[in-house]
Amino acid sequence: MADLDALNGDHADDATWVLTSSFVILTMQSGFGMLEMGSSSKGHEVNIVLKNIFDVVCGALAYYCVGYGISYGSPSNPFMGTGDYFIDTSDEDRIGSGLVHSKYIFQFSFAATSTTIVSGCLAMRCRLIVYCIFSFYAVIVYSFVAHWIWEENGWLRAIGVHDFAGSGAVSLLGAMNGLLGILFIGPRLGRFDAQRPRTDFEPSSPPTVLFGLFMLWWGWIGFNCGSSFGITKSKWLVATRAGVATINSTAGGGLAALLYTKGKSKGKLVLPHEVANGLLGALVSITATCACVHPHDALLIGFVGSITALAANDWLLKLHIDDPVGAVGVHGASAVWGLLAVGLFADGELPGIDVENGLFRGGGPHLLGVQLLCALCILAWSALAVTPFFYLTGIAFSRDCRDPRRGLRFDPEDEVAGIDGAEHSRKFDQKSFDDVESVDSRASRETE
Amino acid sequence: MADLDALNGDHADDATWVLTSSFVILTMQSGFGMLEMGSSSKGHEVNIVLKNIFDVVCGALAYYCVGYGISYGSPSNPFMGTGDYFIDTSDEDRIGSGLVHSKYIFQFSFAATSTTIVSGCLAMRCRLIVYCIFSFYAVIVYSFVAHWIWEENGWLRAIGVHDFAGSGAVSLLGAMNGLLGILFIGPRLGRFDAQRPRTDFEPSSPPTVLFGLFMLWWGWIGFNCGSSFGITKSKWLVATRAGVATINSTAGGGLAALLYTKGKSKGKLVLPHEVANGLLGALVSITATCACVHPHDALLIGFVGSITALAANDWLLKLHIDDPVGAVGVHGASAVWGLLAVGLFADGELPGIDVENGLFRGGGPHLLGVQLLCALCILAWSALAVTPFFYLTGIAFSRDCRDPRRGLRFDPEDEVAGIDGAEHSRKFDQKSFDDVESVDSRASRETE
Amino acid sequence: MADLDALNGDHADDATWVLTSSFVILTMQSGFGMLEMGSSSKGHEVNIVLKNIFDVVCGALAYYCVGYGISYGSPSNPFMGTGDYFIDTSDEDRIGSGLVHSKYIFQFSFAATSTTIVSGCLAMRCRLIVYCIFSFYAVIVYSFVAHWIWEENGWLRAIGVHDFAGSGAVSLLGAMNGLLGILFIGPRLGRFDAQRPRTDFEPSSPPTVLFGLFMLWWGWIGFNCGSSFGITKSKWLVATRAGVATINSTAGGGLAALLYTKGKSKGKLVLPHEVANGLLGALVSITATCACVHPHDALLIGFVGSITALAANDWLLKLHIDDPVGAVGVHGASAVWGLLAVGLFADGELPGIDVENGLFRGGGPHLLGVQLLCALCILAWSALAVTPFFYLTGIAFSRDCRDPRRGLRFDPEDEVAGIDGAEHSRKFDQKSFDDVESVDSRASRETE
Repeated sequence: MADLDALNGDHADDATWVLTSSFVILTMQSGFGMLEMGSSSKGHEVNIVLKNIFDVVCGALAYYCVGYGISYGSPSNPFMGTGDYFIDTSDEDRIGSGLVHSKYIFQFSFAATSTTIVSGCLAMRCRLIVYCIFSFYAVIVYSFVAHWIWEENGWLRAIGVHDFAGSGAVSLLGAMNGLLGILFIGPRLGRFDAQRPRTDFEPSSPPTVLFGLFMLWWGWIGFNCGSSFGITKSKWLVATRAGVATINSTAGGGLAALLYTKGKSKGKLVLPHEVANGLLGALVSITATCACVHPHDALLIGFVGSITALAANDWLLKLHIDDPVGAVGVHGASAVWGLLAVGLFADGELPGIDVENGLFRGGGPHLLGVQLLCALCILAWSALAVTPFFYLTGIAFSRDCRDPRRGLRFDPEDEVAGIDGAEHSRKFDQKSFDDVESVDSRASRETE
Repeated sequence: MADLDALNGDHADDATWVLTSSFVILTMQSGFGMLEMGSSSKGHEVNIVLKNIFDVVCGALAYYCVGYGISYGSPSNPFMGTGDYFIDTSDEDRIGSGLVHSKYIFQFSFAATSTTIVSGCLAMRCRLIVYCIFSFYAVIVYSFVAHWIWEENGWLRAIGVHDFAGSGAVSLLGAMNGLLGILFIGPRLGRFDAQRPRTDFEPSSPPTVLFGLFMLWWGWIGFNCGSSFGITKSKWLVATRAGVATINSTAGGGLAALLYTKGKSKGKLVLPHEVANGLLGALVSITATCACVHPHDALLIGFVGSITALAANDWLLKLHIDDPVGAVGVHGASAVWGLLAVGLFADGELPGIDVENGLFRGGGPHLLGVQLLCALCILAWSALAVTPFFYLTGIAFSRDCRDPRRGLRFDPEDEVAGIDGAEHSRKFDQKSFDDVESVDSRASRETE
Repeated sequence: MADLDALNGDHADDATWVLTSSFVILTMQSGFGMLEMGSSSKGHEVNIVLKNIFDVVCGALAYYCVGYGISYGSPSNPFMGTGDYFIDTSDEDRIGSGLVHSKYIFQFSFAATSTTIVSGCLAMRCRLIVYCIFSFYAVIVYSFVAHWIWEENGWLRAIGVHDFAGSGAVSLLGAMNGLLGILFIGPRLGRFDAQRPRTDFEPSSPPTVLFGLFMLWWGWIGFNCGSSFGITKSKWLVATRAGVATINSTAGGGLAALLYTKGKSKGKLVLPHEVANGLLGALVSITATCACVHPHDALLIGFVGSITALAANDWLLKLHIDDPVGAVGVHGASAVWGLLAVGLFADGELPGIDVENGLFRGGGPHLLGVQLLCALCILAWSALAVTPFFYLTGIAFSRDCRDPRRGLRFDPEDEVAGIDGAEHSRKFDQKSFDDVESVDSRASRETE
C-alpha cells in the first residue's frame, strides 16, 4: 500500500508536467493561426483561421475514434495498436485510467500540431469542407508514424530511431502531406503569371506573422521540454536539457536568418517572413535532437536548420511550387536535417535517454543510416496514404467535370475576390488586421 | 515531523498545480477581451478592452476586501463565510498561510471570469464608471454562489449539487447578470430600427473574435483541469479525466456549430461568430460535467451545448434582446444544459469525485432535480441581487432626469460616433484592428 | 540511495515549477512586442517587433557565451562568476546538470526581459544592427548585477539587499540603460518641434497596447511567483504569497491609474496608455517586494508605484526626453520605489525568506539605506557600462561624419517615412494593425 501510494505520487507529479506542457503546446495552434493569417492575402483571413479551428475539431474527433488506439492502444503489433479505440477507461483500474488520460491529452496536442501544418500549404484555395475531411484523415495517417517511432514495440523504434519530440513524426510528415497537397491542388490563380501584379499575393500583415512566430517559439519550448513525458526519476534531467538546447538552437537560427536575409539583399533588407521561417526552421531541427545533444551542438544545429529552411523555400519558389507560408521548407527540409543531426551529434552517455552515439561522437554511421531510413519511410508513407486521399476527394467533390483539382478548390471568382466574402459574409471591399502592402516578394526577387 | 514534511510535500505539489492552472486561467481575460473587441463596432474597441481591464482591477479589490471571506472564509455558515475579509495570514500558521494564498489566487481567477461575461452583454453603451462599480459588486454576488456550491458547508453542496468547474457558479450567474443588464440598459441605438443600416452593428474584426476563441479554448482546458484543485491522491485522476472530456466536448461542439451554420445558410456559409459561439457553448456545458462523465458522453454534451447556445442567441435576437457578443446564449443557455447534463450522465463510480449517479446511469431523477434547483436558485439570486443594483446606480448617475437608463448609458451622440473618440482620445475617423465590413448579420437574416 | 532518490524527487518537483514559470515568463516577450508595436507610429511596426525578436536571439547568444557564467558560474567572487562560460555539463554529475540547466532557462528568461525594456525607449530611430549589438552587450551588463544581488556570495546580497524578483536587477537596470540611450540618440525628428503635427507621434494602435498589457500582466504573475525558484520546503509558501501580493498591487495600481487619468483630464478622459503604464508601474514596484509584504501593503505599494510611473513620465515629457512607450517612468521610477518599499514594509518574520524588518515593521532605517544603496549602484553601473558603449558604437557606425548620434540612428528620410518601407519591404502607403489616429498626447496636453 505504501508502495502504491509512492507510485501514485510519481504518477501525479508526471501528470502535472504532462498536462502543463499540453496547455503550453495547445497555444501553438494560436501561433499557427496568426502566422498563416498574417501570410494570407486580403479576403482570405477568416477562412484560414477557421481552418485552424476545424483542424482541432476534426483532429480531436479522429484521435478519439481511432488515432489514440492506432498509436498507443493495447494490444498492439510493430505496425499499429489494435485496441483502445473510442477510449474509455474501466472504473476499476484507477491509476491506469489516469495514465491513459494524461497520455491522450498530450499526444492529442501533438497530432493536432502535425495536421495544422498543411493548412498553411493549401491556404487561399482549398475548400473548407475538403480541409475538414483531410484533418480527420491526416490524424489517422499521423497516428501510425507516432506508433512506429514512439511506442515501445514500434518497428522504427526497434531499429534504433531517435526522434525525441517529433521532427519526423510531426513536422516532416505534415510538410510532406502539405507538399503533396500543393502538387495536387496547384498554385493560387495567377501566382506565377508574370502579368498579374505580385502584390496580390503579399502577406496581409507581417506583424501578425511575427506575433505568430512569438507564440510558436514559447509553445515550442513546452513542446520539446514536455516530451520528456514526465519529471520523475531522470526525466527532469531530460526536460531541462531539452529546454537549453531549444533556446540555443534559436540563438543560432536567428543569427543565421539575419545573415541570410541581409546577404540576399546585399545588406539592405531584413525581411520579416524570412526571420520567422529561419527561426521556425531552427526549432524544427532541434525537435528531434534536443534531448541528445550538448548546448554548442544545438547552436550549430539551429544555425544549419535555419539556412536549410530558407534555402529550401527559395528553391521551391523557383520550381513554381506555391507554398504561401513556406511550411514545406520549414517543416520538411529542416526536419530532414534534424533527423540526420541525431545521427551526427547524439551523445548516448547523456542521462535519461536511450540512443546510440552519433557519427561525431564515435558511434559510426549506423545511427545516421537508421535516421535517414526513418526520414525516407515517413516520405513514402505520406505519399502512399495521402495521394489517393486527394485524388478521391477531388473526384468526389468535382460534380460533373471529373477534374479532381476543381473538386478541391474554391470557385475561381471566389478565390480571386477572397473567399471570406463568399463563404464567411465579409464584404468584398474588406481590409485586414492590417492594411500593409508589403513588397517582400518583389524585393526578394529584385535582390536575387 | 516526518509526517509534517510529507504533508508539506503534498501541499507543495498541489500548489504547483493550482498556481499553474491560475496562470492559464488568467489568459482567458485576454481571450474575452479579444472576443469582445472583435465583436464591437468601430469606435468602441478601446472602451471594451478597458472594461476588461478594470474588470480585473475592481474584481481584485472586491475579492480581497470581502469576496474571499464570503466564499471561503472561516467561520462560516451554509449561506456565507463570515471571516477572512481583507485576508492576511498570521506568521505562525505556515502551511495554513500557503493554503489560503493558493486558494485565493485560484478562486480569484474564477471570480474575475464570472464578472467579465457581463462586459460583452453591455458593450457599446454602458458607461465605464458604472461598469467599474458593477465589477466590484458582481464579485460579491458571485462569492455567495461559490460558497453555496463549493465550500464544505455550502447549502447547495449539502443537498448534492455537483458543478465541477462552475457552469452554474461562473457562467450562468454571469449570463443572468448580463441579461438583466441588457433589459435595464436597452439595445444599442437603432439596433432594431429597420431604417438604420445593419452594417453599423457588425463586428469590427471577425479574425480577432476567432483568436479570442482560441485563447479561451486553451485557457478553458486549464480552467477545467485545474478545478481538481490539486494533483495528489486521486486528484490527478480527476484532472486528467476533465481534460479529455473538455477536448471531446469541443470536438462535438465544433461539429455541431458547423452543421448549424451550414444548415441555416442552406450550405452556403460558415459564419465565424457562430463557430466561435458554438465552441464556447460546448465548453460552458462541459464545465459542470467534465469530472463525472465518460468521453463519449462529453462528445454528446458538447454537441448539444453548442446547438443550445446558437439557438438561444437566434431566439434572443428575435425578441430584440441586444447581446452584442452572444454571451447570454453561450454562458446562460448552455450552462443550464450543463447543469442538467450532470443529472443525466454523472457516473458516481468514477474515482476521486463525490456525486450520485445520474438518470442514465441508473441513479433516478433525484440528481437531475437537485441540479435544476441549483440553476433556478442562481437565476433567482441574480435577479434579487442585481436588479436593485442597476436601478439604483442608474438613478444615482442620471443627474436631473431620474431615468435610470440614461444614468447607465453613454450620451447618445457618443454612442453613435463611438465612445473611443469622446472618452479615450481616439479621432472620430478612426478605424479598427481591421477594416472589415462583415455582413454576418445580414447574411444570416437573409438565409433564414 | 534512498536519500539520493528523495533529493532527486525534490529537484524534480522544483524543476517542474522553474520550467513552468519560464514558459510563462517568456510570453512576456510577446507582451512587450505588442505594447511597443501599438505605441509605435505607422511605418515602424515591423521594425519594432523584429527588434523584440533579435533581442531574444542576441540575448540568448550572450547568455550562453558569458552571461550565465558571470551571474552563476563557479568559481566566483563577490563581483562575478569566473567559470561555466559556454555552459556544458559533464555526463557524470547528473543532478548537477539538471540544476544548471533549469537555472539557465529560468535566468535566461529574466535576462531577456531586462534587455527588451530598452527597445521601447529607442523605438522608431535606432538602427536594427546597433540594437542587436546592444542586446548582446546588455545581457553581459545585466549578468553582473544579477550576481551581486542574487548569487550567494554577491556583494549586494552580503550587505542585506532584498530584491525578490528583480525591480532593481531587471527593471531599473533596463530603464537606466534606456534613458542613457535616449539621451545619446536624441528625440524622434520633430518630436518637440511645435510646427510638426503631434499626430505624427501618436500610437498606431491603442488596443494593441492594451493587449500587450494583458500579456505582461499574466506573465508577470509567473515572473514573481516563479522567483521562489522552487516549490519544495518553504518555497511554495513564498510563491503563493508573491502571487497574492502581485494581484493586490495591480488592484491598487489600476485604481490609481484611473484616478490619475481622470484627474488630469478633469474627469473627462481615461487614456489607454496611462492605464497600461499605471498597471505596469504597479507590477514593477511589487516585483522587489512581493515575497516580504502583507496583502494590504501590496495594495498600497501598487497604488504608489502606479502614480510614480505616470508622474515620472509626464515630467520626462516636460524635459523633452523622448521615451515613446514610457519605459523610463514605468521601469525606472517605479523600480526605485519598489526597492525602497522593501526598506519600509518588509516583514522578516514571514516564512521562507531571509530579510530584515523594514522601517514600518520596527527594523529601523538600516534596510532602507541598503536598498537605496542598491538603487544607486545600479544607476552608477549602468552609466559606467553603457555610456562608452553608445559612444563607441555610434562612432563605429557613423562612417565619415564622426557624429556618434548619426551612427546610431536611421537616415532621417527613412525615419520620417517609416523604416518598415526602407528596410523591411513594406510599401510607403502602408497602414497598421489598426488605423486609429488617436490624439492621446494632444488631449493630455490640452487637459493639463
